[in-house]
Amino acid sequence: MSNNTIDTTVPPRGDKRRVRQSPNRASYERDDLYAVLDACPIGHVSFIHENWPQSVPTAIARIDDHLYLHGHPKSRLYKALSAGERVCVSACRVDGLVKARSAFHCSMNYRSAVVFGTGVLVTDEEKPALLDSFTDRLIPGSLNDFRPYLTKELKGTALVRLSLDEYSVKIRTGDPIDDEEDIALHHWAGVIPIESSYGVPVKSANMLDGIPIPDELLAQAKP
Amino acid sequence: MSNNTIDTTVPPRGDKRRVRQSPNRASYERDDLYAVLDACPIGHVSFIHENWPQSVPTAIARIDDHLYLHGHPKSRLYKALSAGERVCVSACRVDGLVKARSAFHCSMNYRSAVVFGTGVLVTDEEKPALLDSFTDRLIPGSLNDFRPYLTKELKGTALVRLSLDEYSVKIRTGDPIDDEEDIALHHWAGVIPIESSYGVPVKSANMLDGIPIPDELLAQAKP
Repeated sequence: MSNNTIDTTVPPRGDKRRVRQSPNRASYERDDLYAVLDACPIGHVSFIHENWPQSVPTAIARIDDHLYLHGHPKSRLYKALSAGERVCVSACRVDGLVKARSAFHCSMNYRSAVVFGTGVLVTDEEKPALLDSFTDRLIPGSLNDFRPYLTKELKGTALVRLSLDEYSVKIRTGDPIDDEEDIALHHWAGVIPIESSYGVPVKSANMLDGIPIPDELLAQAKP
Repeated sequence: MSNNTIDTTVPPRGDKRRVRQSPNRASYERDDLYAVLDACPIGHVSFIHENWPQSVPTAIARIDDHLYLHGHPKSRLYKALSAGERVCVSACRVDGLVKARSAFHCSMNYRSAVVFGTGVLVTDEEKPALLDSFTDRLIPGSLNDFRPYLTKELKGTALVRLSLDEYSVKIRTGDPIDDEEDIALHHWAGVIPIESSYGVPVKSANMLDGIPIPDELLAQAKP
């Protein structure tokens, strides 16, 4: 990850992608973008609706070089996307609390991405394979444990594709950055990591006896 | 929490707050809003900038009946907020992966909130006490372990207050909801919980020896 370095592809001044606060934490590298998106099952998709910004938390998955959003064909979000309206998707994962000697220098460690674009509807032909990839991203290891899609289900699921051309990434890692003159103070400074993990799977109340959890799913879901 | 029930305060049709997808998961109760916001250290703040929706992941804290956003006075976000521009803040926490017998009925368990409003700048007089509350929300138990604020730090920190008047909450909990005819299928169904916890605190590389982590901070940060 290209953290704490400005790479050569910084967008010009005034460009909406350009990170202006703490630009040393910005990245415009595609690998960094993919890593952040892949760590975030939820994106906050914002669009303009009746002169208000409207943000909707939505399941997202990066598949190859595109971002896919998943929703209901009749939702406001899907209608905006299918009408080609401009959207912004932001995603963020918090990795730790950063405790400095001064409240001012407290921070968080995080990985975030912001993507701008317009959506394209996935066609009926493309949908089954992409929905499989989407599901496999969100519930890794589940794919071999479903009954087949019904035609009405394919029709009832909206999948929208977004190009990953306009984006920025921002990543903070490591220690607090205290003022030089504060380092000798008798205050604790450091990082409290935030860890996310899968808990023990809980079977559905209405499940028949004798159905084991698939190995692939369990492998992912082990604490 | 008022989950899976429509309460009596549903906003009218067409209202931007109104949850239209899975309205049975919507809540317009203030207690639910506070619980969701308090569980989310990051909000995705969207505003309109040059006819694009722009969403910025930002540290947030709910203090009493308001939401506070924290940032740099020169940031685009802060400028938009201080100019009274319309903003939308969304926050979401994922609690589990919901594996159904069909891919179509897979889902996630989550708690999310969407707030609409315009910001008001916190005055210099109000700032010290509110910044303390803000810091205590983000790094619980840290407040007694900082040197005092410097005047330039207070000036260099932007704090914006948002009223919590226009909002919606959406919460999903519990089992997958499979089609009746799928329940007898030999596929595993249930929830894989996602658990978030604090790891062992890591002290700053430049910290002098013999400075213990404060008890209050440790109590919060214990895995």
